[in-house]
Amino acid sequence: MTQSSKLPDLAAVEARDAADPLRSKRDLFVLPEGVIYLDGNSLGPAPKAAFAALETAAHQEWAQGLIRSWNSAGWFTLTDTLGDQIGRLIGSGPGQTVVSDTTSINIYKALHAAFSLNPGRSVIVAEGSSFPTDLYMAEGVAATRGAKLRLEGVDAPGLEELIDDKVAVVLVNHVDYRSGLMRDMAALTRKTQAAGAVIVWDLCHSAGAMPVDLDGASVDLAIGCTYKYLNGGPGAPAFIYAAKRHHEKLMQPLSGWWGHAKPFAFEQGYRPDAGIRRLLCGTQPILSLRALQASLDLWDTIDLVALRQKSIGLTDLFIELVEGMCSEYGVKLASPRDGKTRGSQVSFAHPEGYAVMQALIARGVIGDFRAPDVIRFGFAPLYIRYRDVYDAATVLRDVLATGAWRDPRYATRSAVT
Amino acid sequence: MTQSSKLPDLAAVEARDAADPLRSKRDLFVLPEGVIYLDGNSLGPAPKAAFAALETAAHQEWAQGLIRSWNSAGWFTLTDTLGDQIGRLIGSGPGQTVVSDTTSINIYKALHAAFSLNPGRSVIVAEGSSFPTDLYMAEGVAATRGAKLRLEGVDAPGLEELIDDKVAVVLVNHVDYRSGLMRDMAALTRKTQAAGAVIVWDLCHSAGAMPVDLDGASVDLAIGCTYKYLNGGPGAPAFIYAAKRHHEKLMQPLSGWWGHAKPFAFEQGYRPDAGIRRLLCGTQPILSLRALQASLDLWDTIDLVALRQKSIGLTDLFIELVEGMCSEYGVKLASPRDGKTRGSQVSFAHPEGYAVMQALIARGVIGDFRAPDVIRFGFAPLYIRYRDVYDAATVLRDVLATGAWRDPRYATRSAVT
Repeated sequence: MTQSSKLPDLAAVEARDAADPLRSKRDLFVLPEGVIYLDGNSLGPAPKAAFAALETAAHQEWAQGLIRSWNSAGWFTLTDTLGDQIGRLIGSGPGQTVVSDTTSINIYKALHAAFSLNPGRSVIVAEGSSFPTDLYMAEGVAATRGAKLRLEGVDAPGLEELIDDKVAVVLVNHVDYRSGLMRDMAALTRKTQAAGAVIVWDLCHSAGAMPVDLDGASVDLAIGCTYKYLNGGPGAPAFIYAAKRHHEKLMQPLSGWWGHAKPFAFEQGYRPDAGIRRLLCGTQPILSLRALQASLDLWDTIDLVALRQKSIGLTDLFIELVEGMCSEYGVKLASPRDGKTRGSQVSFAHPEGYAVMQALIARGVIGDFRAPDVIRFGFAPLYIRYRDVYDAATVLRDVLATGAWRDPRYATRSAVT
Repeated sequence: MTQSSKLPDLAAVEARDAADPLRSKRDLFVLPEGVIYLDGNSLGPAPKAAFAALETAAHQEWAQGLIRSWNSAGWFTLTDTLGDQIGRLIGSGPGQTVVSDTTSINIYKALHAAFSLNPGRSVIVAEGSSFPTDLYMAEGVAATRGAKLRLEGVDAPGLEELIDDKVAVVLVNHVDYRSGLMRDMAALTRKTQAAGAVIVWDLCHSAGAMPVDLDGASVDLAIGCTYKYLNGGPGAPAFIYAAKRHHEKLMQPLSGWWGHAKPFAFEQGYRPDAGIRRLLCGTQPILSLRALQASLDLWDTIDLVALRQKSIGLTDLFIELVEGMCSEYGVKLASPRDGKTRGSQVSFAHPEGYAVMQALIARGVIGDFRAPDVIRFGFAPLYIRYRDVYDAATVLRDVLATGAWRDPRYATRSAVT
């Protein structure tokens, strides 16, 4: 196939990189030789500063400071310090976000907290196409409370049709993990609250991908992970946000000693902390938190408006190039075409998506596959260049045009796909 | 005061070190210059091997391997691999222990799992003097299930008097965090099960301090932490054990995607894994897990019978020396005198315990204080020498005899005491 003459050429793409206000940020990350990494929406690459942070945490704080570091190195308040750093990225004023536990655990806390704010109601609304752990945790909460789960796409086609006066809480993804569809946070929050329900936003695919304005949208609760766009490291602890107006009333059953008003008074009964710390539970993995902190220090300097602008530029370009070069090979856009309603990722459906992605990975273009047929490419604006977009589209075209993906090696599935 | 001539002298103590079969293990840890570290029962020191493990995890697995490391570096099954390594130390055959989340979270899972095995019952029995987070989590479980909490020391003087046919689950510490009292695991397990209840053992102060035999005692469930005697690093993830005979039936509401039979099939509904992985929930902090693994590799080589023998030797000696040198200064043994019912720690009560401990810490003898009046000393046999016991007792005598603890600097409390 010859490339349409209307598509941007390499020179045009390189000119965009030269004009990119974020271009210097790429040097802050380790990106392996020969790899175009389009999976930062699954596991972000390592900020170089994380290595020194880990070394200090291990050699100085742990090995030399020992137990004293809980006070002297500030371990005790890391959950809050890091929470406030994430706060700037998600539009949370200080004292409303803490880093702790996993996304799944925080969903559990948030849903129970929502019920504690809305005790007379008995229904959880969620998306049938949600990232599954949200639904699994909602099942767990429903089981312990005798509540009912209503799913978009199962109980009604649209989320909003499910929200009535029985609904205690709506759990919704800001950006869909598979398609990249971005919801209107302010509008859905208003609609939910107008029905007397509480909203919980899952920011796993938006925190660090675009500006988020939780306070501005009067959101009730939010949760998210730190190992994707926020580059916190594999399995880095997650975060949870609760608007200050709710702190005094909200309760959650993972009422561990870290959420206690006086954890070191060793009282027999639970008394929650007055503020956001009541959403903490147990002792957090400090080494992993220090790696995350190195990344958040870097994020402190990032202009989120420029980030979003580049994100739309990268994803628009990828759609344009792939559709221009590959549409005859059975790939079909599975993400919103309009940048305004799209996260920082682009997905295409292909009936043999799994094998296609394996062939891409073998050629150094790392995206991922999401069942049943989606190949997914994340474009993290801090380190992905327009040039990378161009090269990735070219490799995808080659894999499809040559049928390279038919190699039987690419059919075998591994544990994590 | 002159020392009683019957107390062991320095030469006698050093002879015991020379004959110690574990003496070479001390070199595997970093122990800061000028410190006698008797707080390994709160935060274990760093095994030297942890540094290289962290470096490989960060530089190679994360930075170079990126998302591929979930398969290629075995991240996906670390929860199980590490669980089985801990298994050897707690008498758990393979496939019954996983490393995940925090102690508090695992207590929550275990208590709910116990109710799922015993659905007709409505009471949780625990110790009023328990480490508080156990009670706080039990409160959380009781609140979500409408269950009732009965406490030893509140509702009856002895735990066994509380166990009747309403009791679903008994949550009990193998070794008490404050006094070091060790319970008879086999006997209490039998007694509990004879009443039709399920037992959950908290091993926070016994895993890595002595041989534990969960399978041998037919225990139902157990949980514990890895950052104390197991030297996993600050806030290292905790573990949970469930006997294989229960796997098929037990359910717990923290039903996140990692506990799903097919996490990467992205199914809409939760289907628990057939085995111990149903006690997993979300993605774990890999960097912290790698530090823990370095320590567990070291633990693989330890003879637990020799460990226990030395533990009793160290703690017996400390009691003998402190009572011989310090009893006139108001310290009173707050631990069992009989080594057979004592964990690897010794506690003394002193009305000004907080200040006494601060004075000790200022002199390089690091133990800790537990409200209201306990000074607590942990003796981890892998790196504590008989000589350290002798020196610590001597410093304690000096602090008490000179009244050095009265210095006003030692009265100020910090966040973590």
